[in-house]
Amino acid sequence: MASNIKVGIVGYGNLGRGVEKAIQQNPDFELRAIFSRRNPDDVAAANGVVHISEVEKYKGDIDVLILCGGSATDLPEQGPELSALFNTVDSFDTHAKIPEYFEKVNASAIKGGNVSVISTGWDPGLFSLNRLLAEAVLPEGKEYTFWGKGVSQGHSDAIRRVAGVKNGVQYTIPVEAAVESVRKGENPELSTKEKHLRECYVVAEEGADLAKIEREIKEMPNYFSDYVTTVNFINEDELKKNHSTMPHGGTVLRSGRTGENSTQIIEFGLKLDSNPEFTASVLVAYARAVYKLSQAGQAGAKTVFDIPFGLLSPKSPEELRKELL
Amino acid sequence: MASNIKVGIVGYGNLGRGVEKAIQQNPDFELRAIFSRRNPDDVAAANGVVHISEVEKYKGDIDVLILCGGSATDLPEQGPELSALFNTVDSFDTHAKIPEYFEKVNASAIKGGNVSVISTGWDPGLFSLNRLLAEAVLPEGKEYTFWGKGVSQGHSDAIRRVAGVKNGVQYTIPVEAAVESVRKGENPELSTKEKHLRECYVVAEEGADLAKIEREIKEMPNYFSDYVTTVNFINEDELKKNHSTMPHGGTVLRSGRTGENSTQIIEFGLKLDSNPEFTASVLVAYARAVYKLSQAGQAGAKTVFDIPFGLLSPKSPEELRKELL
Repeated sequence: MASNIKVGIVGYGNLGRGVEKAIQQNPDFELRAIFSRRNPDDVAAANGVVHISEVEKYKGDIDVLILCGGSATDLPEQGPELSALFNTVDSFDTHAKIPEYFEKVNASAIKGGNVSVISTGWDPGLFSLNRLLAEAVLPEGKEYTFWGKGVSQGHSDAIRRVAGVKNGVQYTIPVEAAVESVRKGENPELSTKEKHLRECYVVAEEGADLAKIEREIKEMPNYFSDYVTTVNFINEDELKKNHSTMPHGGTVLRSGRTGENSTQIIEFGLKLDSNPEFTASVLVAYARAVYKLSQAGQAGAKTVFDIPFGLLSPKSPEELRKELL
Repeated sequence: MASNIKVGIVGYGNLGRGVEKAIQQNPDFELRAIFSRRNPDDVAAANGVVHISEVEKYKGDIDVLILCGGSATDLPEQGPELSALFNTVDSFDTHAKIPEYFEKVNASAIKGGNVSVISTGWDPGLFSLNRLLAEAVLPEGKEYTFWGKGVSQGHSDAIRRVAGVKNGVQYTIPVEAAVESVRKGENPELSTKEKHLRECYVVAEEGADLAKIEREIKEMPNYFSDYVTTVNFINEDELKKNHSTMPHGGTVLRSGRTGENSTQIIEFGLKLDSNPEFTASVLVAYARAVYKLSQAGQAGAKTVFDIPFGLLSPKSPEELRKELL
């Protein structure tokens, strides 16, 4: 077992709390501090919270900072800033902006002599790894990603912005017939609508025009208009009782051909009771890799594509070859 | 696109022929020679075959040798021998002997200044990678590997050694109810018998005692006695027509827990029309990684655990981050 890896958590929302729990499952880790932008007295945390402005004082006492902020506004600032001071790992997930984010974090991590793994989690992250692997092994083929069944935060937020809506949750659901067709090697051409359904549970304000709300949701461009969407009106109690967890998951499939005409299917799937807890568990495994790479004298930004799986494990290369190969 | 990677194939059975086909799907590869222990005049190959005794003459002209011999007798000799002369990749799959094989190949590859990836394919190989990944991400959990439906060469050979048997094929079949129970997160304790069925198709010699053959197969220790085994007698034509391809596949599942009590399932599955063609495709992807590592000045034996996925792809790190992350 490697010596203790001392970590700090930056941001104490669902993801940060998930990292705090994941660390307890990994005895080679030690949590040194949780950093928040909020007033530490206002944050309920068993381990105590430190204001983010004091993070620099922890230089030398923390091996890896696990960045748990959001991709919209937190990480674009914190990633480049903190990678100059510490080794970091994050789950930056705005796919289109990853190249730009990588360059910024890379420059600052190299300057600081730190290792920073960006954009890990499950998508981007484990799903990306499987897309790469399947494409490399089966160059002649077609790739499909299905998400769900799971809660989409972005779509839930969109529902809640509709006038007359008090609260709401949106589930993304893969079309089972489409998944089955891919698994059979039929290589279907699938439109947006043929891949996923959108199911909404909406709490309306008293006296609101339900028909109008339903119409506005279903016709919302980008979010719902290209899909078969169902809208269910429920009350606040039902929402709390039945729709307050954050399940998610999905499947990456590649259907390829080799030789004369052999169909070869590679499938990777996740079924998650808790999306933030799973993402947190992936972050912790990659924090271990960050630590090992830093110990080996490396610096700069990395992605999951640059990290050998052996570095994710607390076991030695000899143990891994003996037990898991 | 990287410049051409010049490869040689050692061993021209099902796997070697699979590699020959896989290379045609990867334009950054160039096949320089196929080596065989047989008399080259006796081997039908479009690309021509060279006797293995001449392999040393190809030093400098071949970047990576892809070793396609068997794990019982070919690779234990060829791996250490050829890794002293060339970069190599192989699919050595005797799990219990991997640590010993690794040490031998490592010593000889370091001496020769070569890179040698051992034991790749799908099990060991892609399945091993997923066992490691899932264990690292979900340390509290239980791992299950199911194989099939597919032809087991070892069990088919065992059938053919029974007196009165002319020919035979054995399929390993996962018990669907067991797989479903794992997928549901029920963490079942499964005996050998509860995980896999064995289905045999047997061509008996004329006048043979069928009841005796069936009994001998079903009671054969190690191979069949611990399983529910079915024996079907068919004629040689039926065997050729319906049982001459080599499908295989399987599933690696890990059911883990995070936080208070969230069940998290990671699943990796393969459904292969042709087992040797798929293994060959994996070998070629790892030959690309061998080439890149060798170009970067590395030497020694490696396993799939040591290789970042980015090295498996012909695409540049920038392209991978933009297109696949």
